[in-house]
Amino acid sequence: MQRRDFLKKAGGTSLALGAGTVGIKTVRADTTYQWKMVTAWPKNFPGLGTGANRLAELIGEMSGGRIRVKVYGAGELVPAFEVFDAVAQGTAEMGHGTAFYWKGKNEATQFFTAVPFGMTAQEMNGWFYHGGGLALWTELYAQFGLVPAPAGNGGVQMGGWFNKEIKSVADLAGLKMRIPGLGGEVLKRAGGTPVNLPGGELFTALESGAIDATEWIGPYNDLAFGLYKAARYYYYPGFHEPGGTLEAIINQAAFEALPADLQSIVLNACKVLNQDLLAEYTARNPVALQTLLEKHGVAMRRYPDDVLIKLHRLSREVVSELAEKDEFSRKIYTSFRQFLDQSQAWSNLSELAYLQARNLG
Amino acid sequence: MQRRDFLKKAGGTSLALGAGTVGIKTVRADTTYQWKMVTAWPKNFPGLGTGANRLAELIGEMSGGRIRVKVYGAGELVPAFEVFDAVAQGTAEMGHGTAFYWKGKNEATQFFTAVPFGMTAQEMNGWFYHGGGLALWTELYAQFGLVPAPAGNGGVQMGGWFNKEIKSVADLAGLKMRIPGLGGEVLKRAGGTPVNLPGGELFTALESGAIDATEWIGPYNDLAFGLYKAARYYYYPGFHEPGGTLEAIINQAAFEALPADLQSIVLNACKVLNQDLLAEYTARNPVALQTLLEKHGVAMRRYPDDVLIKLHRLSREVVSELAEKDEFSRKIYTSFRQFLDQSQAWSNLSELAYLQARNLG
Repeated sequence: MQRRDFLKKAGGTSLALGAGTVGIKTVRADTTYQWKMVTAWPKNFPGLGTGANRLAELIGEMSGGRIRVKVYGAGELVPAFEVFDAVAQGTAEMGHGTAFYWKGKNEATQFFTAVPFGMTAQEMNGWFYHGGGLALWTELYAQFGLVPAPAGNGGVQMGGWFNKEIKSVADLAGLKMRIPGLGGEVLKRAGGTPVNLPGGELFTALESGAIDATEWIGPYNDLAFGLYKAARYYYYPGFHEPGGTLEAIINQAAFEALPADLQSIVLNACKVLNQDLLAEYTARNPVALQTLLEKHGVAMRRYPDDVLIKLHRLSREVVSELAEKDEFSRKIYTSFRQFLDQSQAWSNLSELAYLQARNLG
Repeated sequence: MQRRDFLKKAGGTSLALGAGTVGIKTVRADTTYQWKMVTAWPKNFPGLGTGANRLAELIGEMSGGRIRVKVYGAGELVPAFEVFDAVAQGTAEMGHGTAFYWKGKNEATQFFTAVPFGMTAQEMNGWFYHGGGLALWTELYAQFGLVPAPAGNGGVQMGGWFNKEIKSVADLAGLKMRIPGLGGEVLKRAGGTPVNLPGGELFTALESGAIDATEWIGPYNDLAFGLYKAARYYYYPGFHEPGGTLEAIINQAAFEALPADLQSIVLNACKVLNQDLLAEYTARNPVALQTLLEKHGVAMRRYPDDVLIKLHRLSREVVSELAEKDEFSRKIYTSFRQFLDQSQAWSNLSELAYLQARNLG
């Protein structure tokens, strides 16, 4: 099988290589691979870091030890925001992070983490695996010698931690907030100052006043960083990351050096982690939320309707301007937008109608 | 590793066997396994049948051809509703179906497909993989010599096809409807007559008047069976199956005969399919919905609030009575209920709040 064909299939709607390919490559039980995985997270950080560890274990286990992957936390081998370059250059064979950290490489990467007022985790997976999204992502990353795979999702995030209430869009003006990706662009249009910082620096930055506000992920991870100690108000919903997707990246040359069965194991291990992390967040967020409310007295606030409406309008501007940057960005935008519009109608009749009905009883 | 330990880990929160186990079993590239997979679906039926095919391909591909799985449609080797027995007896090594079809074996199986007004797909996966649900399922099926795995999810289903409008609970009285599992019990308490039929028999039963109404899955699969030709009204939301889960079952002796890497490949292939089918439904349902509305003029109806409230009350009765049947059912119910209650609070702040906010713009 040619690499191009493989990547096409890996990125498209075909889940398997197809029965016809089984047995083409001989299982080489005698060849073993020692891989490094660099990550954008503190080593062993709940969900993100432990998820990266599980990805490595899964690959080791399914391959019967033919691939052994050693995981490095942010700063151990390279800093958090150098994961992309390290894997592209072959310093490590794999990385675990999230695509919008690399908007300096190509702004279109941001579509593959989260779009403000965009798709939920379930919708993102529909787009990636059965709507052409992963094929586009694969095409974009091939320019950098990388193979991407969705590898974790936090679900709908929380809006973030603030030390003042957000009663109107005017309250966002002048706010210095850690909010990466397109969400940051939306904040900028609302008059704020977005910054990006690796997770490991958030608490100190917020506590010292270097930033006024921050979003991170949701109760499970926000509790782990102790963000409730540095800010009083916890806003929802996370309009900026409704289905924030983590990524695994694989050095293309290292990937191609593997026999077909191990290529399949690596990509499918990413799929397993993608689902497993969402399940972990779904199980841990409710418990952490309870702790934040009952033990730490956090003040939960919903963004007011008029703030959400205004932010939604700004989001549409930001995203459609991104689509104008170049032809490839337009192609991704068109695919994303079409999938989202159709999904929204269906989600309203299914997930939304059901969650509302469940609350009636 | 002892079987008991393995199953504990497979069913619990541990995703991998753990790094310590890698390499304990030697990769036996010379041993191949020829397996049969019997299914409860028409051969190649969109989503269900093609998903079973993909599961077989995935196992073949990741194992480098060391396991080859041949898939049989309903009735090819055994009828749809004999899949459980066929795999338990070793007629086939694997099966693909859904747990509530086997309520005649043990009523508690129904918790693992769907509970009316219960969990969504995302919540079910949280419970299975990180909330103890799969461990309980594994314990229940071990009594029958079977290893279970979640292997597909249709998301929030549609409520079903009716030839009259449902304006009050009284309109359900006397209705003969195909609705399996606990949803059927709820209909019975509302005065209806639930029946179960394999998917392949639905259209004929509805068209001939043998049944008055039917639910099946959602737009993608309901369109494929042409149900719109036999009924006028299409109701939502599917309160009875908010995250209907498909299952793979594996003959325990056949599973234990595999080396550790192949055991891991089989169970992880099920995880991949579990996510992949939900993604497929999420991508295909919106398109099929549009076809049903625009091409076939289907009349969409939402269940009225007072019908939903009454059905929710009946559901609580049905489910809590099921929990009284025996000690193990109570154990499953307690775990399920606790997870659901916590999840509902979090889903209201995340998924629900977000889906509502997205519609404001």
